Amino acid sequence: MSMTDTPVDNGVNVAALLEAREALTAAPEAAQFQWRASCVWEHGTHSRSTIERFFGLGAEQQHKTTFSFDADHPEIFASEDHGATPVELALVALASCLTAGVAAVAQNREIQLRSVSATLEGDMDVSGILGIDSDVRNGFSGIKVTYDIDADATPDEIKGIVAQSQKRSAVYDIITNPTNVTVEVR
Amino acid sequence: MSMTDTPVDNGVNVAALLEAREALTAAPEAAQFQWRASCVWEHGTHSRSTIERFFGLGAEQQHKTTFSFDADHPEIFASEDHGATPVELALVALASCLTAGVAAVAQNREIQLRSVSATLEGDMDVSGILGIDSDVRNGFSGIKVTYDIDADATPDEIKGIVAQSQKRSAVYDIITNPTNVTVEVR
Repeated sequence: MSMTDTPVDNGVNVAALLEAREALTAAPEAAQFQWRASCVWEHGTHSRSTIERFFGLGAEQQHKTTFSFDADHPEIFASEDHGATPVELALVALASCLTAGVAAVAQNREIQLRSVSATLEGDMDVSGILGIDSDVRNGFSGIKVTYDIDADATPDEIKGIVAQSQKRSAVYDIITNPTNVTVEVR
Repeated sequence: MSMTDTPVDNGVNVAALLEAREALTAAPEAAQFQWRASCVWEHGTHSRSTIERFFGLGAEQQHKTTFSFDADHPEIFASEDHGATPVELALVALASCLTAGVAAVAQNREIQLRSVSATLEGDMDVSGILGIDSDVRNGFSGIKVTYDIDADATPDEIKGIVAQSQKRSAVYDIITNPTNVTVEVR
């Protein structure tokens, strides 16, 4: 078997995803998902969130394990730094969504990846959240994502993979476009 | 000391935050922060992200410990479920941001919290990310956050705390309003 015959394997089961696409096209109600998180206040700005169940394919679903996340503010904000800050978690969500997409798109285009890494930088003027200047937004003024990718592909093919991942990324959409959030007290 | 003389303590150092606000009002360049994440592709849709350093108060800063996050897709998407999905991480970011804000605002209003928990539900039609229907967005169609709060306060005071937390939340802003994201390949 020559090099060119080695099947491309990035670990993404594209055949199953294409089957899922076909199945959900025929049964669109199965495509209605609900993702969930629960969060318990610990002390100060420290909280612990848990991810366990979600709804999809018309049924309750459960992760293999329960994932738990501590979040806090850092010591320079007079907090105890028991976890990443919420805004850093938003960067992790974006990074992991785009990176999973890179692997899936590369698999679909039969391009073997060797390594993929990303660095994210989110600029923020904290005059917003501290209430110093009401013209400054609370969130990031902008986010820059930089990929380093080693793959059996030309630079243009690699750029094309990243662009397609952006186009299909749920978290990229969540961050770049508005989403309605309702907050209620029971 | 009677009950009414017990100082309210939610673990948030509001005095330090108010001092920070004063200091940053006088030195606005110190309010320019940069939050960072790095992400390494593991296999398939599994990645590991790391949070360690950030920039703020005019200097490089470092968390007490390095925080690391596995993300993956679940088994029903033919993945190995090694971590929460990226969109669940976005819910965790929102939950933890609003909850830290509830504690800080309650402290500032001298209201003792006894317990705070939140459940988040993010609805999503996965016809978007699967490329079945280009009219369906990739992200959440909407997010519902429900708080259960036990505090020494009236229901209206509790609602007021949550509303103020929303108003000052970085992640609430990031999700409800658009943010520019540039993605580059090195």
